[in-house]
Amino acid sequence: MRVFFAAPSRLWDEWSPALRAACPEMELCREGDPASFDALIYAPGYPETGEPMDFAPFTRARLVQSLWAGVERIVGNGTLTQPLCRMVDPGLAQGMAEWCLGWAMRLHLGMDRYLQDGQWRNGLVPPLASERPVTILGMGELGRAVAARLGGVGFPVTGWSASGRPVEGVRVLGADALPQALEGAGILISLLPDTPGTRSLLDARRLAMLPQGAVLLNPGRGTVLDDQALLAALDEGRLGHAVLDVFRTEPLPPEHPFWAHPRVTVTPHIAADTRPETAAPVAAENLRRAMAGQPLLHLVDRTRGY
Amino acid sequence: MRVFFAAPSRLWDEWSPALRAACPEMELCREGDPASFDALIYAPGYPETGEPMDFAPFTRARLVQSLWAGVERIVGNGTLTQPLCRMVDPGLAQGMAEWCLGWAMRLHLGMDRYLQDGQWRNGLVPPLASERPVTILGMGELGRAVAARLGGVGFPVTGWSASGRPVEGVRVLGADALPQALEGAGILISLLPDTPGTRSLLDARRLAMLPQGAVLLNPGRGTVLDDQALLAALDEGRLGHAVLDVFRTEPLPPEHPFWAHPRVTVTPHIAADTRPETAAPVAAENLRRAMAGQPLLHLVDRTRGY
Repeated sequence: MRVFFAAPSRLWDEWSPALRAACPEMELCREGDPASFDALIYAPGYPETGEPMDFAPFTRARLVQSLWAGVERIVGNGTLTQPLCRMVDPGLAQGMAEWCLGWAMRLHLGMDRYLQDGQWRNGLVPPLASERPVTILGMGELGRAVAARLGGVGFPVTGWSASGRPVEGVRVLGADALPQALEGAGILISLLPDTPGTRSLLDARRLAMLPQGAVLLNPGRGTVLDDQALLAALDEGRLGHAVLDVFRTEPLPPEHPFWAHPRVTVTPHIAADTRPETAAPVAAENLRRAMAGQPLLHLVDRTRGY
Repeated sequence: MRVFFAAPSRLWDEWSPALRAACPEMELCREGDPASFDALIYAPGYPETGEPMDFAPFTRARLVQSLWAGVERIVGNGTLTQPLCRMVDPGLAQGMAEWCLGWAMRLHLGMDRYLQDGQWRNGLVPPLASERPVTILGMGELGRAVAARLGGVGFPVTGWSASGRPVEGVRVLGADALPQALEGAGILISLLPDTPGTRSLLDARRLAMLPQGAVLLNPGRGTVLDDQALLAALDEGRLGHAVLDVFRTEPLPPEHPFWAHPRVTVTPHIAADTRPETAAPVAAENLRRAMAGQPLLHLVDRTRGY
């Protein structure tokens, strides 16, 4: 099986070992006659000349396997007549849970108090996790994974969702109880999707409901947050810190005040990244299915666009 | 019940609310006639004049309750004739597990890559915790608590102890298998006590057994580590980072190279600190026992010294 790696070259070192390990029978190439390839591994940004990708010469290809879950940058490509599959990485919820756990622990323990300046500051001891309530907005697959992970290390977790649908082992509040969900949040985590109902949900009025010194993690969607209201709450000392992974404009522009604010940490939309270790076996399975003429996993419906 | 707070004034704001909440019937004072007090809460550094503490005028006191577990700075005080109890904080193992989890996650996720300089760096994705093996040296009460916490979030945990005694749910290696324990450690955590057998156990030869890029957490005892060997391994890029909470000399002198090394993080012996929330109820229980003439918890045997 000959497979063409149609992805930016910076991805090669990270992905090629995992793909080859998951699919040893594959010959993975970065050059060669397009008509000689059985399939393509694709990620946006290829070709690196900036021209649109031309799938037409890949006449023998039975599969275009995207490395990412989102295929919006390719689904409308008129040269793409081969079956297109998006990536559904089984490690994604796990990775999101780890990002949330890591940043929650960093803020919970006040780890950034320990400046490396030669001064021995053994002052205030943080409370235990069991004394630090966490509220998670959004109780879908990711919200439930994060709730399980943070609850498992001792944080008392409250979930909030528009439906209020019960989740085992978590107190879940419904639409009307948003004030209670916010009032109790020592750490607030937003995993809300971008919908008309969630846009600017975390505005000045809602942020003012959080307890003094509360911290915010936003690995969900940037549109949920009113940026100016957050900056004001941080400047006034009502909120302690915010770690933001998603933004209204991405990449976050260099001049955006979030970058320079001492109480904001920016991470570059990596909380739920696709991981070679868990995604490569999914690609391998699809390559084998394509060669055997079996139904493909996560095949994109071109009329729906996903 | 009148209780005298014989501890440095910096501890008052942190401890007095927790002590009063745990023992509402107590009148907690920072001044008054020594002969009027039923008991003392004590921590080293009092009196703040630097003179030795004089317990003799506290003629009515039935208990001197230490805030800390260690009483080596008071057990030899000739004026101390009242019963002395050390603090055994039930939150201590939990706090140690949280310190280890927090720093392990920070290094595991590479959280410090995200400089707040306006540059969007969504490069390498870290592996999942399940791909990052952790070795814990020392499988006592603290080692077992840390193993349970890190194993619970997905890290594959190996324990090592001189006895090799089995621990449920953890692979435990014995004395002879130290090389295997080190070879597999993406994250190495030392919780070894200071004994003749552990001194400088982590020397140049042992550190060289760790895999390339491994990181070290030492919240156990500073004597376990050969400081110069660690610095050499970090300088040569063989080890990725070290987070050190304990040192051969504490406070760590300002001129020690650990403070300024870019691959070392110093925390001021706080990994297993006593927490007011969990320790105050223990003090309250002892104060009530003292008033009722009942046996005291964690009474120090003055001949053994602990």
